[in-house]
Amino acid sequence: MTEGYPEHLREEVEAYLAGLRFADEPAAAGLEEAMRYSLLAGGKRIRPVLALATARALGREPREVLPLAAALELIHTYSLIHDDLPAMDDDDLRRGRPTCHVRYGEDVAILAGDGLYAEAFRHVLSEQAGEPRHLLSAVCELAAATGVNGMVGGQYIDVKGLVDGGAASLRRLHELKTGRLIGASVECVLLLSGGGGGSTLTHFRSFAAELGLLFQIVDDILDVTGTEVSLGKPQGSDERHGKLTYVSSYGLEGAREMARESHRSARDALARASQDGTGELEQITDFIYTRTT
Amino acid sequence: MTEGYPEHLREEVEAYLAGLRFADEPAAAGLEEAMRYSLLAGGKRIRPVLALATARALGREPREVLPLAAALELIHTYSLIHDDLPAMDDDDLRRGRPTCHVRYGEDVAILAGDGLYAEAFRHVLSEQAGEPRHLLSAVCELAAATGVNGMVGGQYIDVKGLVDGGAASLRRLHELKTGRLIGASVECVLLLSGGGGGSTLTHFRSFAAELGLLFQIVDDILDVTGTEVSLGKPQGSDERHGKLTYVSSYGLEGAREMARESHRSARDALARASQDGTGELEQITDFIYTRTT
Repeated sequence: MTEGYPEHLREEVEAYLAGLRFADEPAAAGLEEAMRYSLLAGGKRIRPVLALATARALGREPREVLPLAAALELIHTYSLIHDDLPAMDDDDLRRGRPTCHVRYGEDVAILAGDGLYAEAFRHVLSEQAGEPRHLLSAVCELAAATGVNGMVGGQYIDVKGLVDGGAASLRRLHELKTGRLIGASVECVLLLSGGGGGSTLTHFRSFAAELGLLFQIVDDILDVTGTEVSLGKPQGSDERHGKLTYVSSYGLEGAREMARESHRSARDALARASQDGTGELEQITDFIYTRTT
Repeated sequence: MTEGYPEHLREEVEAYLAGLRFADEPAAAGLEEAMRYSLLAGGKRIRPVLALATARALGREPREVLPLAAALELIHTYSLIHDDLPAMDDDDLRRGRPTCHVRYGEDVAILAGDGLYAEAFRHVLSEQAGEPRHLLSAVCELAAATGVNGMVGGQYIDVKGLVDGGAASLRRLHELKTGRLIGASVECVLLLSGGGGGSTLTHFRSFAAELGLLFQIVDDILDVTGTEVSLGKPQGSDERHGKLTYVSSYGLEGAREMARESHRSARDALARASQDGTGELEQITDFIYTRTT
């Protein structure tokens, strides 16, 4: 088990995100404010940090992929804003602060989410350097991972409660809702870099998928064991919403055992993907497993 | 003044849209149903038809740009679904049918909009043929036209009522909210085709921008003079929402005069852009000016 988290990468992401501006039009300044309110609420920035660490594992300079990494965080923020809406999970608190719709109203929150998604694509398409055909593949994966067969589809299955309680069904929900974007954080960098060779790509994909699963199992555990202060959101909100989670399906100990196995699989896949330059990816994997918030 | 509307292009778009499927995951079938409910509600398909007609004006086979054209309509549909939401314009009726949130619930409607936007990018990036760098430019324009400095920004200014009543401010609102996507329907095809040369591009851009303006002036006039049956939505909804429109600002006759001038400017710009193969674009321009629904 490695110690720590690649804070140097997180800081680089944080500074880059803080420098982003979206509105050329003065009348839209209030929309930009709402977007930045949610975007700059802190957090570990796991998705962009993963992207930067993947670049290093492929022998590239991490900052070369900052535009792509930023797009991942813009998209993640958009998904949080829409998930928190009254018509969806109806959450008032996020990272210890009022959610976007509580602070700015529901209309502005919907548009802030829409705007972040649009600006994510605009940013990566206008700022990310790379071979045009590789950039196309990377951005296509970004769209696929966040569409009907990814994040949005997963959120639909979640809010409509279309999970039958079986292991495969629960796993599929989380693959779509959370796993695909975590996975894309690794995969988009591979695609941008030209694929990285057949078996490398396969192993990195397994690693990325397993990491998404691990993230969600731990998230479900923390929703039960965490405190409101440490989580920055109400504890036990899954149970109140009657959601099927790894804990409700397998019990706390069962979920913990699944997390242990998933962590081991992720580390194995990473070791097969590459033996060089993956120190930061190992740190992130271990952090996702042992985090308490 | 030309007669008619390029129905052959509309039919081609309609058949293409009807053939689109989004959900690989059976559990997300209900989301796809809501997306297709709104997507396949008919209409003139002005944006994709414009794209196809632009392709012809550039000497290309219109059907070559069908994936891009479809993406424009997916995005337009997403914007209508979100605009109709209770937190936004709160409209119950669209094209004579219950709006998406009335039919499927607010949560599903938000996700149907999000899904359509994501699938628009996925579709054009995976299906549209073209030089990679030209395709990148076209998709970047699609994102820019629908982001904070385009459609979403315009909708923000509209719902927050941030228009001071001056001509420039009203024009800017509509440029962002409606004009940019109408313009992008022409411009994306130019970019995909490699730009079409400096002055051609400039004239096509003027044409596209003027067409967006014309569309909105006529829309404002129809909101006052149309009937609920012909419009497929409640007549007079702008006035009820206290919105500033070309009619509320300039009176019905003033708005009609502006439409006349805008129509003339659009036709002039089109004539300067090209003298070949623009018959369909002339039809669309005249249709937008003379339409009654």
